[in-house]
Amino acid sequence: MGGKESTDLKENTISSERIYDGRTINLRRDIVELPDGRQAQREIVEHPGAVSIVPILEDGTVILVKQFRAPINKVTLEIPAGKLEPGEAPEHCAARELAEETGYRAGRLEHKGTFYTTPGFSDEIMYLYIATDLRPVDSQPDFDEFLTGERIGLEKLLEMAEQGKIIDAKTLVGIYTAARFFLP
Amino acid sequence: MGGKESTDLKENTISSERIYDGRTINLRRDIVELPDGRQAQREIVEHPGAVSIVPILEDGTVILVKQFRAPINKVTLEIPAGKLEPGEAPEHCAARELAEETGYRAGRLEHKGTFYTTPGFSDEIMYLYIATDLRPVDSQPDFDEFLTGERIGLEKLLEMAEQGKIIDAKTLVGIYTAARFFLP
Repeated sequence: MGGKESTDLKENTISSERIYDGRTINLRRDIVELPDGRQAQREIVEHPGAVSIVPILEDGTVILVKQFRAPINKVTLEIPAGKLEPGEAPEHCAARELAEETGYRAGRLEHKGTFYTTPGFSDEIMYLYIATDLRPVDSQPDFDEFLTGERIGLEKLLEMAEQGKIIDAKTLVGIYTAARFFLP
Repeated sequence: MGGKESTDLKENTISSERIYDGRTINLRRDIVELPDGRQAQREIVEHPGAVSIVPILEDGTVILVKQFRAPINKVTLEIPAGKLEPGEAPEHCAARELAEETGYRAGRLEHKGTFYTTPGFSDEIMYLYIATDLRPVDSQPDFDEFLTGERIGLEKLLEMAEQGKIIDAKTLVGIYTAARFFLP
């Protein structure tokens, strides 16, 4: 293979500079020592972590949300998701976000994976759940969240993914993961 | 559904403040007008965009790279990937990163998807390719990239994904996408 055959790939942080402490994210700049002793700079976005949920109704359709995403200036179709509150357990967050964004409570909430969205520049961790046995509940999204719900079958969602109609990474992971469990 | 039934979800940017201009990413803070006229803050990480590649050998195994990721302080197993150079076409970037990170050139490089890694706080776009008809080529990773290659079959990778052994989002998308095309 083309890579240097280093048995120890680890970088050691030499110094760390706070650049920005924000409401949703923080930014810091680290100087790291590379395995060969040289130094490099790493810009790191600190994120509180998040959950995403694939809510599946009795009839097999998935509840998704449409919302405007300022960073990409586009309306996206995504599985429900949201950031962890300080100290909040991922499962609690998943139940909360599901209710807030879709108006459903899950009788069954199964943890189906944990991944990092962008390990190259951020520490955001994402806990993925599949929610079933759904019951309507009264709820309201956050004041700055405007979204509308959509119900789409899993097979149709796989087609949409192949056609480039699903452009959100966690939603792609969620759909493919759910398909492994719910489609023959 | 629980969401406000707004037919127009779009937010309009009222003001934008540069927070940081870095080597890999920039950070800005926008004030946006919500659909109901109220205002909210959006912290946005600007990223140059990236490519990722699922390189599949004649025998069906996938070439992956192991590397240390400073933001999460972990060694990850990922499909080859890299950032776009200014003005670089995604396909050119894919061929370049494939050679740099794995030592292979692709006879066939197919664009299989485009998605956003974290549309909630970043504009990073990811172009996904499947590379086949692979031939060895001389190459070197960037000075600050230390990585080692691994070859793993696609079925095994799907198992590893289910077992939580693949923790990088784009790699999960890449594996599932390749499985749709290459597995029965």
